[in-house]
Order: sequence, then structure tokens, then C-alpha cells
Amino acid sequence: MLKLPGLIDPHVHVREPGGTHKEDWATATQTALAGGITTILGMPNTQPPIFDEATLNLSLDSAKDKAHCDYGQYLGAGPDNADIVAGLANKAAGLKMYLDSTFGELRLDDMSLWTPHFQKFPKTFPMVMHSESRTMAAAILFSAIYDHPIHIAHVSLKEEILLIKAAKEKGIKVTCEVCPHHLFLTSDSPLPNLGEGLGVRGRKEVRPRLATQEDVNALWENMNVIDCFATDHAPHTIEEKDSETPPPGFPGLETILPLLLTAVSDSRLTIPDIIQKMHTNPRKIFNLPEQPETWVEVDENETYEIKAENQFTKCGWTPFEGWKVKGKVKKVVLRGKTAFEDGKFLVQAGYGKNVRA
Amino acid sequence: MLKLPGLIDPHVHVREPGGTHKEDWATATQTALAGGITTILGMPNTQPPIFDEATLNLSLDSAKDKAHCDYGQYLGAGPDNADIVAGLANKAAGLKMYLDSTFGELRLDDMSLWTPHFQKFPKTFPMVMHSESRTMAAAILFSAIYDHPIHIAHVSLKEEILLIKAAKEKGIKVTCEVCPHHLFLTSDSPLPNLGEGLGVRGRKEVRPRLATQEDVNALWENMNVIDCFATDHAPHTIEEKDSETPPPGFPGLETILPLLLTAVSDSRLTIPDIIQKMHTNPRKIFNLPEQPETWVEVDENETYEIKAENQFTKCGWTPFEGWKVKGKVKKVVLRGKTAFEDGKFLVQAGYGKNVRA
Repeated sequence: MLKLPGLIDPHVHVREPGGTHKEDWATATQTALAGGITTILGMPNTQPPIFDEATLNLSLDSAKDKAHCDYGQYLGAGPDNADIVAGLANKAAGLKMYLDSTFGELRLDDMSLWTPHFQKFPKTFPMVMHSESRTMAAAILFSAIYDHPIHIAHVSLKEEILLIKAAKEKGIKVTCEVCPHHLFLTSDSPLPNLGEGLGVRGRKEVRPRLATQEDVNALWENMNVIDCFATDHAPHTIEEKDSETPPPGFPGLETILPLLLTAVSDSRLTIPDIIQKMHTNPRKIFNLPEQPETWVEVDENETYEIKAENQFTKCGWTPFEGWKVKGKVKKVVLRGKTAFEDGKFLVQAGYGKNVRA
Repeated sequence: MLKLPGLIDPHVHVREPGGTHKEDWATATQTALAGGITTILGMPNTQPPIFDEATLNLSLDSAKDKAHCDYGQYLGAGPDNADIVAGLANKAAGLKMYLDSTFGELRLDDMSLWTPHFQKFPKTFPMVMHSESRTMAAAILFSAIYDHPIHIAHVSLKEEILLIKAAKEKGIKVTCEVCPHHLFLTSDSPLPNLGEGLGVRGRKEVRPRLATQEDVNALWENMNVIDCFATDHAPHTIEEKDSETPPPGFPGLETILPLLLTAVSDSRLTIPDIIQKMHTNPRKIFNLPEQPETWVEVDENETYEIKAENQFTKCGWTPFEGWKVKGKVKKVVLRGKTAFEDGKFLVQAGYGKNVRA
């Protein structure tokens, strides 16, 4: 039996408030535990988005009542809330900046709108960028100019990982995360194994998009540049994914660890890599407290097939349907209590603690 | 009579080879002289593009035979010519990188393709970026990482000039130019005064696009951040501009100086500003030789109306048609010889010298 420290996922879409038919603070944190993850950081693009004190409290109040594992809640950067979010920094997981989207309260289409956030958000708290390709380069330039550490979410491209490598070598304070679907799938991957038709197209929708084999290879070849693994767990129901307007996003909390352990079994990765990128580094980057008496027990030799019907996420599907993996989470102990064992959740809703409390 | 030094335009589309029905080395250099400009640097996106020794010689041979003022020819950066252009650096005006276009030999859509140019092109020669908005930020990041000076072409947006200002304050080696059409026109400008219909749309097409009044104001408010004025003289015939697929680009060589002198008359600019941004700075940034016994005589009190019919460019139109300006070029003396006087060209084709000879 392999024993791992409590794993951290810094990139989860909890869907509460506003999307609780997809997931909520109870199911997201249970799903995390089932995946061997004891801390999740929730993204702010909910309905309403989390961009001020009232919306932050809306999410944190739900989390307090319902969470089964530890958690934090990001604030979203908007065009005119730099002072507000800077003032709330010590209550939040960090600041999320959506630099490649232009919607509502979290709109930041003009780079001039980035400046007050870089100037005002405390340097001791993380700023996380949804920034692809050249936008990512722009974000790194802001990091260099304002001497403010940033964390690049879901790196997927060769040009991105190579530029992050060069920026790190130059001393720019940039860290990054990569998602399993960008390590294990390409735009040509036949997913999921559920036949043809509309669903195949809709289920493939994810942002950043699945990339080429060359991009995937570059991520693996630059494993030492990757600071964290993160799921970008973004559940949508199977009906939504199979609709005419499929929303982008994959679930991922229950598949990240078995996929990575299978890569260990295939000698593409090591256990210390997993501990570093899912525990040591995220704890440091996101300033997370120690979780005493916390560990994950994994049967690293158990092989099984990933099946949506065996998962706990509400969303009812997985892009890795039918994949054979090696390594199964058997037990999770969180702060001295067994929180998950043999498919059962053993702590009450509300046991999870806010990492900023 | 106002006496100015020989002015420099670092951004001219000469159209030779391949587009000589729009302009050629003879008409471009005559047009420059008529505008008070004694040195032009020619862009490489000709037909064929200038991206290796053979194509560089193709342009320089024409220029040698036909130029009436001094000139240089840029090389274009492509996906696989970094060694070639680095080896030709001392024969060229500099290296032009088209980072917002993805065409043929000068395609650089993937940022990974930028790296070898930043690594190999000699730091003593200029690298000029067509890079808008976030792409511009990306180019500045490359400049910072590879410690390579860059020059940003045709800045047009508030977010761009503010970011250049911040980058300069941080010590990053970035310079920039602004074109008169981005200082004097907005996307709402009714141009040209030639009636309605297809032509109005087509003639407005330019890259970067005409921007908002807020952008224009930001350029004027940050005049001290602007290193150079440049025309981006990009002649297309009036038939092409009025066609169903109008190509982007404005002529500008004959209108830049009267427009700027009118701004001086309106107390929005000073003569030292013009000398700094059209002579002193470009000479330094582009490493240009002194032109001894060279000056421009301007009647700063003569007012007149800009009319395409009075211009020397082949293209037959101007976006400033009908504008009333104050300040007329009367005489240009280039290296001891009167090259232009009272609307007449007085030096032979071939009098112009290659700035890198």
C-alpha cells in the first residue's frame, strides 16, 4: 500500500453558487476525496461570479456547511474591483484573472485593466492566470514589470511551456500547472468510447483545447518546468455536453491520480514527481497550511477500468471512459479522521476547513 | 523659412519587387523627398518577400538603380531563416517580424519560432515588430528574456502605449513609433472626403486599424513615450482600395510633415519634438549614418489643402484629402545637392545611397 500526503488541486470548478445541478460544495469535495485530494481551490466564475465581499461570502457560507475536504475560494478580477479584491485577499485562495475571456464582471479584455490588479493585489497571495499563448506571454510580462508572482493555469502548448521555461531561467516569478487531459489526450483522441455523433464533438470541448501530439510531447519533455498538476475539474452534465451548444470542460478529480500513477507504472513519471506537483509545490505556491495527520492510501497495484458509473461527480461522464489504469485510492485520512474508505465518505458535511480561516 | 535636418522614415512599403503598379523605388524615394524625408527604410513583405540573400539583392539592386533618397531594406523573419538573416544583418536596415500575420515565408504564428531570431540576430541591429495588443506584450517579454532591443511598429492603442511606458520604466529595451493616421484619425473619422459607398469602407482599411478617440488621446498624452514618427506608407491604387476586397494601408510620405507642423501650429507639438522623433531618435535606433550637408527647407506659414492630385505617390489618393494644413516643404538638400525644390526632383535616379553600404 502506497502512502501519499494529502493532495492539493488548485483548480476546481465547484459550480456553487448557480450550477448545483452539475456539482456543489458537497459533491465536489467528496469527489476530491475519492480522488485522493484533501484540498481544493474553487474558481470564481460561478453564477454569480465571486468578485466582491458579498459573493465571496455566498460561496464560503455554502462551503462551510457542505465541504467534506479542505478548500479555498478564488476571487475573480474584474475591470473595476482591484481595490475590493486586494482588500479581501487574506480571505481568498487567490485572485483569478480571466485574460482570454470577455464576460460580465470578470471581463479584462483591455490590458490596461490588468494593471491595477498587478499593482494592488498583495504579493504574498497568488494571482492565477487563464491566459493562453500570447496572452500568457503578456501576463508574464506584467509579472516581470510589476515584480508580482503569477501562476499560469492549464498550460497546454509547446510554445507556452518553452516560454515559461525561458522566463523562469530569466528569474521571472512564474509558476504553472498542467492538467491530465493535456498530458494524456490530443485533439485527435477518440473520446469518449461511447460511439459516434454529436456527443463526441461536445464532450471534446475544453478550454484550453486539446492540442497536438507535439504539444503533449513538449509537456512531458519539460516535466521539470511544470510546478503543479491540476484538474481544472469543470463538470457539465452529459445532456449539456451532448447538446447543440456544448459547454467546454471536463471532470477530472477522480481520474488525475490513477492516470498519473499509471504513468509512474509506465516509467514516465515518479512518485516523488506526483508528491512534488500535487503537494509540496502547490502548498508553497498557494500558501496553504499544513494538514496534520493527513494521508492518502493507494493500492498501487490494483488495475481497473475508469467508468463514469463508478464516479461520484454529479456530471455523469468522463473523457477517460474505458481507460485501464493502475493505482486505486483506498483510504483518505484528513486531520486525524478517516474521510474516505473503500468508496464510502466517513466525515460529515462541514468537516472541511477553509484554508484561509 | 524653417530649416530641418534630413528626416527619416523607418517604415515604408516601397512595393518593389512585385507591386510596382502601386509604387517603386523611384516613386517611393521621390515621394519621400517631396515630404521632406531623406532616408526611408523599406519593409520586406514584397512579392517575393525579402527573406534571404537572393531576395535582398533583388530589392537592393533595384534601389541602387532607382533611388532618389537614401534607403535601407529590411529582412523578414520567417520560420526557418534565423541563421540566414542573422548572417545578412549588416546589409539590411534590420529584421522585421510579422507577429500578427500568418503568411508564407514570413509566417511566425507559433511563438517558438520567434526564439531563434531573438537568439541569433545581432543586438547591434534593430528588430522591428508588427505586433498588436497582447502580441506586442509578448514581443516585449521576448525582448526582456533575450535582452535584445526591439522597436514596436505603428503603436495605435492606449493599452499599447501604456505598456510600453511601463516596460521602459522597468528598463526593458523597447522603442516605438506612431503613425500620423493613428494620431489624427479615429475609426469614426469620415474619410476621405470623397462621397459615400464602397470606397469609404475600403479606404479606411489599415492595420493596425484606426482606433478610438480614447486611444488617440492616450498617444498624444504620452508623446514622451513615442520615440519615432513613421508613416507606414502603404500605397494601394484607388481601384484596389475601392474594390470588393480592399487591401489595408494608407499612403503617408507626403502628408506626415505638414500634419505634424500643423499640430505645432496648434501648439500640440513642438519643432524639437519633430526633429527628435524624425531624425535624432531614428538615427540612433536604426544605427543610421550621418548625411552631411543635408537639410529640409519648409515654409512653416504656408497653408494649403491636401489633394491627391498634387501628390507624387503612384497610388492616387490620400486619407487626408481636403485637410487644411500649415507648413510646406520647399526644398530638400541631400548630401550637398538640391534633390527637390518647388515640386521638382533634381537628382538622378540612383543618387540615393544604401545606409548599410
